[in-house]
Amino acid sequence: MSNPFFINQGPYDILEILKLLDLNTNNFQKRNVYDVKDLLSASYNDLTFFHSKKYKDLANLTKAAFCITTDNLKNELSKNCKPLIVKNVLISTSLVTSKFYPDSVYDNFDSEVTDISETVYKNKIKFGKNVLVGKNVVLGSNCSIGHNTIIEKNVSVGNNCTIGSNIVIRNSLIGNNVKILDNCVIGKHGFGFLPNNDKNIRYPHIGIVQIKDNCEIGSGSTIDRGSMSNTVIGKNTFLDNQIHIAHNVKIGENGIIAGQVGIAGSSVIGRNVKIGGQAGISGHLKIGDNVEIAGGSGVIKDLPDNSKVMGYPAKNIRQFLKESK
Amino acid sequence: MSNPFFINQGPYDILEILKLLDLNTNNFQKRNVYDVKDLLSASYNDLTFFHSKKYKDLANLTKAAFCITTDNLKNELSKNCKPLIVKNVLISTSLVTSKFYPDSVYDNFDSEVTDISETVYKNKIKFGKNVLVGKNVVLGSNCSIGHNTIIEKNVSVGNNCTIGSNIVIRNSLIGNNVKILDNCVIGKHGFGFLPNNDKNIRYPHIGIVQIKDNCEIGSGSTIDRGSMSNTVIGKNTFLDNQIHIAHNVKIGENGIIAGQVGIAGSSVIGRNVKIGGQAGISGHLKIGDNVEIAGGSGVIKDLPDNSKVMGYPAKNIRQFLKESK
Amino acid sequence: MSNPFFINQGPYDILEILKLLDLNTNNFQKRNVYDVKDLLSASYNDLTFFHSKKYKDLANLTKAAFCITTDNLKNELSKNCKPLIVKNVLISTSLVTSKFYPDSVYDNFDSEVTDISETVYKNKIKFGKNVLVGKNVVLGSNCSIGHNTIIEKNVSVGNNCTIGSNIVIRNSLIGNNVKILDNCVIGKHGFGFLPNNDKNIRYPHIGIVQIKDNCEIGSGSTIDRGSMSNTVIGKNTFLDNQIHIAHNVKIGENGIIAGQVGIAGSSVIGRNVKIGGQAGISGHLKIGDNVEIAGGSGVIKDLPDNSKVMGYPAKNIRQFLKESK
Repeated sequence: MSNPFFINQGPYDILEILKLLDLNTNNFQKRNVYDVKDLLSASYNDLTFFHSKKYKDLANLTKAAFCITTDNLKNELSKNCKPLIVKNVLISTSLVTSKFYPDSVYDNFDSEVTDISETVYKNKIKFGKNVLVGKNVVLGSNCSIGHNTIIEKNVSVGNNCTIGSNIVIRNSLIGNNVKILDNCVIGKHGFGFLPNNDKNIRYPHIGIVQIKDNCEIGSGSTIDRGSMSNTVIGKNTFLDNQIHIAHNVKIGENGIIAGQVGIAGSSVIGRNVKIGGQAGISGHLKIGDNVEIAGGSGVIKDLPDNSKVMGYPAKNIRQFLKESK
Repeated sequence: MSNPFFINQGPYDILEILKLLDLNTNNFQKRNVYDVKDLLSASYNDLTFFHSKKYKDLANLTKAAFCITTDNLKNELSKNCKPLIVKNVLISTSLVTSKFYPDSVYDNFDSEVTDISETVYKNKIKFGKNVLVGKNVVLGSNCSIGHNTIIEKNVSVGNNCTIGSNIVIRNSLIGNNVKILDNCVIGKHGFGFLPNNDKNIRYPHIGIVQIKDNCEIGSGSTIDRGSMSNTVIGKNTFLDNQIHIAHNVKIGENGIIAGQVGIAGSSVIGRNVKIGGQAGISGHLKIGDNVEIAGGSGVIKDLPDNSKVMGYPAKNIRQFLKESK
Repeated sequence: MSNPFFINQGPYDILEILKLLDLNTNNFQKRNVYDVKDLLSASYNDLTFFHSKKYKDLANLTKAAFCITTDNLKNELSKNCKPLIVKNVLISTSLVTSKFYPDSVYDNFDSEVTDISETVYKNKIKFGKNVLVGKNVVLGSNCSIGHNTIIEKNVSVGNNCTIGSNIVIRNSLIGNNVKILDNCVIGKHGFGFLPNNDKNIRYPHIGIVQIKDNCEIGSGSTIDRGSMSNTVIGKNTFLDNQIHIAHNVKIGENGIIAGQVGIAGSSVIGRNVKIGGQAGISGHLKIGDNVEIAGGSGVIKDLPDNSKVMGYPAKNIRQFLKESK
């Protein structure tokens, strides 16, 4: 994944990483680790993680120098990859990733913003009262930004965009001709953490939000940035009010999504998809192109291209209407 | 429809309108067009539109001087009405209406607001920090307006109203004794546009939001203004938090609407209607008086007076509970 | 209920109370009434209320000096308790409670806030632009508060808390290590009123919101304070975006509640409960420990410990999936 915003603070010595995980450093030598990646994309100087047997084929092929894993799983690993044996792989991986990408874990407000009237945008943009702009923000030409809106750090906005009032945006790439209505929150970390009695552990969100050209985002909507990939709203997709798009969701172009719809984490929605009001889509699903989902439906499994569904769980719309008479 | 806010920029010469639509001006002579109206209400100097056979009786009777229509439909038109033949009637009508009512298409933030402490309301109203007021705003006596709230242009507020913080209101007529809680967005255009590959076309929203006396609107709610008619919340109707009321919806008096309910565009709700939390009502429906809709229900067809319904699709509540055992 | 915030404005002479209720003062003598309480907890100098036969055993035992009730019910009362006969017990009780706790009925914005940069927190807290703080607010160490956030009166925040931007909080006790994301509204009165033609009557909300240690509250959520008891979010419970928690709801520790969930008034949720996105829980229910509720479900009855449910109305998840094939 290309991530323009979260800066890798590594490399770190593997001995330092072992100490962070409360592991014994015997049998390890000083060596730099450059990144934390998954089994497949990790390269020779990286650390990876392996927490479930279903990834054993990838574990056998990984090029990573080190792998956070369990005593049970360690024998499935490539012989060139040295295991770091822990109790809970995901918690330990989260700790290490947080060290490499510390900014990506906690979403405190951006305290380094400036009033836009004191920036280079003073004469380039039409803006309201009390508009704040963070570091590493680029605003295109012919844009307008409403009152009390906060463009926190790491945001790029294209040309001819209309951003309303009382909005918070961070870690987002916004295309041209995009319209964002009042009171939205865009680019905050998603609802991703490792449940843990008494104190859950947040894992990093190093993805961003991408809103492509010609999109519209309705009032009071929330779009979370991705954890390990990006959250993407495709070209010319229109969202109505009070919509919630969770982390890592990808929506194709020309989508029409009515009010109060919610799409759970990591689902991928095709092109030309229409979703009626209040419908919900579970996480990690694949919804094909040209799909139509009736308002109020609850989709809990993948849908092929051109499906028309309704109900909870959503099924073929004709079948649903027949059965529910 | 009476609309006090959106100003008709016409008249325009029919030759200018033809050019806007990329139509040939042969066979047309200079003549002023005063407004764009539907087939029934258009008068002798207006332009109308006709896009579906089901309106052929109205087309035959229209008094309009000109009509945007298709080659297929043109022969159904009154002989006194001259057709403007286009490919897509709604897109062309939208273009022309936007010319007559340019302010009604795009909802950029209101850049002409003033801090309330610099207005005539300085000593008449109780207000918080950073309250902004636009042009053509009238505020009644004994009102209070919370911090960071923006009353954009074209708003009238009655007496004894309580408006919370972080709210945006525009294009709205608000009665007496109305209470609007924090973080609402009221009066923005609705989710109305003509789908079009790569770049949807917004159509004008020349309606307003009317909130009658004694209403309460819960925190984080959104009420969109109408497109061709008004969105109306009847007297003494109470809305809980996070409710979404789409464009053109009309709700009767004494309604009780619980949290997270959504009502889709153009539906008309009777008097004394109770709607439980998270229920949804599809668009263009007619819900009678004294209807009770259980929480979580999805209403997809008209409901007669005194109905009590539950489920999705919503049906008689006794039948639903019996069947779902 | 311990309530640190709403101050009892009593005592009031019973003759004054009788006048408020438009009742005849014959047969009554000057005597101070100190509080309004329910039948069980009222003591010798208090006023209570009795509106339904199902409380007749408590009515017979009450220690209250006076009781608002009806002509029908008065004979069930303890002989030491003098009845105040009215037409509508709840409306009259609401009127009297409003006299004792006037601040608890109406939630006008807090006009007595100060910019945080002019308070003792100036050098103790990390804060954004335009942050406002009311009276009787205590902020712990190592907290941060984002831009445009308003901490209205009667709020206590523990240590190490992260509060985002555009938030309104009042009447709330917030523990340590709590994180509240942007655009939330916390501590407003709930959706509680006595329906009344033409003009509903709000009843007092003298409860507060308690958010225990280590919780996280997602963007755009609303948590209403309690009416006669508190609204409580248990330790280490995480709420996703756009969640609505109504008045008097109590959620146990370690809960995981996904986006757009709504929990209606007075329901009590156990520990370690997981609730999927968009699920709804009706009011006045008891949900046990370790319950799992699938996304989109509608729960309309109590659920024992360890239940796993799905559907509307929610039933055993295996049964639901089998039946819906």
